[in-house]
Amino acid sequence: MQLLKERILTDGRVLSENILKVDSFLNHQIDVELMNEIGKEFYEIFKDKKITKILTAEVSGIAVAVMAGLYFKMPVIFAKKTESINLDKDTFEGNVYSYTKEKQYKIRVARRYINNGDQILILDDFLANGEAIKGMNEIINAAGATLAGVGVVVEKTFQPGKQMLKDMGIDVIALASVSSMKKGYVEFED
Amino acid sequence: MQLLKERILTDGRVLSENILKVDSFLNHQIDVELMNEIGKEFYEIFKDKKITKILTAEVSGIAVAVMAGLYFKMPVIFAKKTESINLDKDTFEGNVYSYTKEKQYKIRVARRYINNGDQILILDDFLANGEAIKGMNEIINAAGATLAGVGVVVEKTFQPGKQMLKDMGIDVIALASVSSMKKGYVEFED
Repeated sequence: MQLLKERILTDGRVLSENILKVDSFLNHQIDVELMNEIGKEFYEIFKDKKITKILTAEVSGIAVAVMAGLYFKMPVIFAKKTESINLDKDTFEGNVYSYTKEKQYKIRVARRYINNGDQILILDDFLANGEAIKGMNEIINAAGATLAGVGVVVEKTFQPGKQMLKDMGIDVIALASVSSMKKGYVEFED
Repeated sequence: MQLLKERILTDGRVLSENILKVDSFLNHQIDVELMNEIGKEFYEIFKDKKITKILTAEVSGIAVAVMAGLYFKMPVIFAKKTESINLDKDTFEGNVYSYTKEKQYKIRVARRYINNGDQILILDDFLANGEAIKGMNEIINAAGATLAGVGVVVEKTFQPGKQMLKDMGIDVIALASVSSMKKGYVEFED
């Protein structure tokens, strides 16, 4: 997605060879008009997949998923990271390992919101280690639903997530594929 | 907002005299078309306030704020609850007391995203104890910006937040005002 790549080159900040900050337009401050274009793009990519629900994980995937949901006209569900009095006890769970916090945590969706007839599109902001998407896929499997597609806004192809998911049979479509961030410069795959 | 009130009566679940679950359409599963109408309604209410940015707090306010942002065509910022390697060290902070977790925590916005010329609209999903809005107001004050309005989707007027904020000079506009949930029934203010 050319508009997104240009924005990453203009406003993204490379903090190390692994950390790309896009919090001026994607995951702290949100450029809503860019997000709208992102939602529209995901719709164009997955519109023939008979999607019945969009699944994301809190926090940063929510804006992406909601904007895409506007085009699909289908409900968006965000998996919750913490046990909350506001979440039903009866949940499907997925396991996510956080490399930054060096611990495993669970994400949960109330059972009543996914059933075995659902064709689910997973959307998220970033793909790096692939843990959040793996966890969401576990939720979909536990519900007996079908994974109909996975889309992320930015993937870092030099980190292990993309290959790990591919080995599990899960293909991820990214709107921008960053192949390297050496010496402070972002390079995209062709 | 009549559409919202009807939806609360149809799909809201009263779990106790204080807990109203609306997670089938507002804050776990999201009815995106309803959320779109909510965003449009906030725009109609606050469109003359010269809003330059919309501020919300993660997690459940994000969908509301992003959808309103589409109409305002202004950036949305979500205050973060946890210290993250992805958040700048240089932040404005607000204090929030969680009654459910019985502890104080901080919400933060990177300083670069709010400045003293901003006219800020705070949006959130719920007003109960008013702590999140109080914390966001602290962030706005710390930045020297102006609070231009506060909107919430649902307020519970029988809990202390609305009055506490009013005593601080902060008027909150709610799209649905729940005045009582006794015996399992939701009652709205006129």
